[in-house]
Amino acid sequence: MPQISERGLEMPESPIRKLAPLAADAKKRGIKVYHLNIGQPDLPTPQVAIDAIKHVDRKILEYSPSQGYRSYREKLVGYYRKYGISVTADDIIVTCGGSEAVLFAFMSCLNPGDEIIVPEPAYANYMAFAISAGAKIRTITTTIEEGFCLPKVEKFEELINPKTRAILICNPNNPTGYLYTRREMNQIRDMVKKHDLYLFSDEVYREYIYTGSPYISACHLEGIEQNVVLIDSVSKRYSECGIRIGALITKNKEVRKAVMKFCQARLSPPLIGQIAAEASLDAPEEYSRDVYDEYVERRKCLIDGLNRIPGVYSPIPMGAFYTVAKLPVDDSEKFCRWCLEEFSYENETVMMAPASGFYTTPGAGRNQVRIAYVLNKEDLRKALIVLRKALEQYPGRAEDD
Amino acid sequence: MPQISERGLEMPESPIRKLAPLAADAKKRGIKVYHLNIGQPDLPTPQVAIDAIKHVDRKILEYSPSQGYRSYREKLVGYYRKYGISVTADDIIVTCGGSEAVLFAFMSCLNPGDEIIVPEPAYANYMAFAISAGAKIRTITTTIEEGFCLPKVEKFEELINPKTRAILICNPNNPTGYLYTRREMNQIRDMVKKHDLYLFSDEVYREYIYTGSPYISACHLEGIEQNVVLIDSVSKRYSECGIRIGALITKNKEVRKAVMKFCQARLSPPLIGQIAAEASLDAPEEYSRDVYDEYVERRKCLIDGLNRIPGVYSPIPMGAFYTVAKLPVDDSEKFCRWCLEEFSYENETVMMAPASGFYTTPGAGRNQVRIAYVLNKEDLRKALIVLRKALEQYPGRAEDD
Repeated sequence: MPQISERGLEMPESPIRKLAPLAADAKKRGIKVYHLNIGQPDLPTPQVAIDAIKHVDRKILEYSPSQGYRSYREKLVGYYRKYGISVTADDIIVTCGGSEAVLFAFMSCLNPGDEIIVPEPAYANYMAFAISAGAKIRTITTTIEEGFCLPKVEKFEELINPKTRAILICNPNNPTGYLYTRREMNQIRDMVKKHDLYLFSDEVYREYIYTGSPYISACHLEGIEQNVVLIDSVSKRYSECGIRIGALITKNKEVRKAVMKFCQARLSPPLIGQIAAEASLDAPEEYSRDVYDEYVERRKCLIDGLNRIPGVYSPIPMGAFYTVAKLPVDDSEKFCRWCLEEFSYENETVMMAPASGFYTTPGAGRNQVRIAYVLNKEDLRKALIVLRKALEQYPGRAEDD
Repeated sequence: MPQISERGLEMPESPIRKLAPLAADAKKRGIKVYHLNIGQPDLPTPQVAIDAIKHVDRKILEYSPSQGYRSYREKLVGYYRKYGISVTADDIIVTCGGSEAVLFAFMSCLNPGDEIIVPEPAYANYMAFAISAGAKIRTITTTIEEGFCLPKVEKFEELINPKTRAILICNPNNPTGYLYTRREMNQIRDMVKKHDLYLFSDEVYREYIYTGSPYISACHLEGIEQNVVLIDSVSKRYSECGIRIGALITKNKEVRKAVMKFCQARLSPPLIGQIAAEASLDAPEEYSRDVYDEYVERRKCLIDGLNRIPGVYSPIPMGAFYTVAKLPVDDSEKFCRWCLEEFSYENETVMMAPASGFYTTPGAGRNQVRIAYVLNKEDLRKALIVLRKALEQYPGRAEDD
């Protein structure tokens, strides 16, 4: 039997999805599982998007252009303008989810062995895409005690070497909910400029900023226009995770030219997804406002609830719809498994994502979990009760440090 | 400005899609372009698939499982059974088109520097996916004079070395339309077994076999069950290229485990596409029969027509819906460009895929084009007239060799 590739062995299992079989088994045993593990909002997709799908008036579900439909890209220009991001339709390449945008950015910009600096905890799949491209993620650890703010520039400078080719940020951050300040963004800009690095900026949560602080996009930073590659997706803002529509946006023509070759190889982004995404841009303003207001309340509900559980601590996330919380357990992965395999309270349990999968530093995040507040408040409250009971009964409880 | 990756520079432009901007310009000038370049059938998608989309009754367009919906995979089991392919739902992983299945197969099975043997001309994007994975395609040239049949085993043996990890075939073949015989498939099986290679078999055109010869799937070959990775897609059989639904099928659990990690990283295959693909399995038998009959006629129309043009030669393809034809020109890429940029006949022109992009051997296929017979017969006939006129007027005409 021929062997699996080294890359195939090295690829991490998704910390968000790898426990899914255990959740399925729990459900088979009749247990209700609160999914706090995955950023799958329970909020409705805009009705205009559902309607656009229902009214698909085509005889043939044909290929679309490799870079995505022009009509959709032109409409996106107006969307970005509202956020002070000035792009043309030609700067935008439609991808199969934000995932493909990250993969193609890495494939086009990084050679095997090249290094990318990423503040950790970080969205776990960046590691997976880096392995796919043969690149190496070098992480800078941010801490729960400091609210996951950006470490000092010196920490970056220590890591930068001739192999360093890029900095990657997610802003607002998944998994921490942290929002980079203008000062932090300017620091990043200066490093990018000084060392002529790429800046990959994943900004798929820009709609969800709760503190009144300004959203500073990588595209707002002056003097590094040729270095910035913006990663985007409609998944979260329209509750359309399943349609797989994202975008890669850059002013750098050479990058676009390379990315387009990867796009041509996979032929085209999903057709129906583009139809839904384009229609979603016409969703009424109330849609976004209602969704936003709902997340504001859920955030409060979750964070207050977490911090009331003895031994649990969560900072207050400024954006996105996740938090990284510290639990009084020996090993959060063991705890998350235990919740699904051995525990239930009134026939219910919780599924969370062990945070260790969001760190590359060994041992980091061992007593942390990522929790998504994508469930309605009633479910969140119930899930909090279940979590409290689980922590009371869990045999591997750790004393507070 | 930071540099593009070597891989990004090395990636080929798609020979099928790279001339698309020239076609767009021609259309802007009011010229009708017959698209013989791309395997985008003009035949209708099954109505059951369109209806399934129209009746999507969901409030949320949510993620699907990374391996695809179980209901769809279970239904596929019955589809494959009709072709004598015995698989379970667990053997099937749903992908974003056949493209992603190829990429993930390469990523999971091949290390950078590993070699894959592929008979050429070959579907150009295999080269692109190999570059993505850092693997190296070694081609064995098949010739138009021999109808693109499989070269002798010795030719393969000459290429096999410790770096060789896989053989890749496309059967029925894109771009040649060749169908491997039982004897040829057994030869491949023996080599795969002897050298313990992977056999990647792209069989997306299995519905289209015109000669009464049997379809021998790689999955029919005994003794190499752990070596075979089947690549599939619904794009061509249901005229659903745009929904981006394919599959990777293997009995090899280790391969599936590795592939699943790549699947988890990209989260899920398209949701609406899966709904359409699943519904398509209920298309009435007449659908497939009508489509098949139509291709039989188109094949005759195109091949007869081509061989009647002075200096043009096309073998008779046994399957799929392409042929590779020899043209009396100096350079088919120049000719294809010229057709789009400088030529028209009664305000019409043709777009074809220069065959050189389907070869890795320098100079090979220089006077060949790939032509897809995905247009209706009337359009095919008109396109043949336009092609004849173009060849008469083309300044770079070559004498027959």
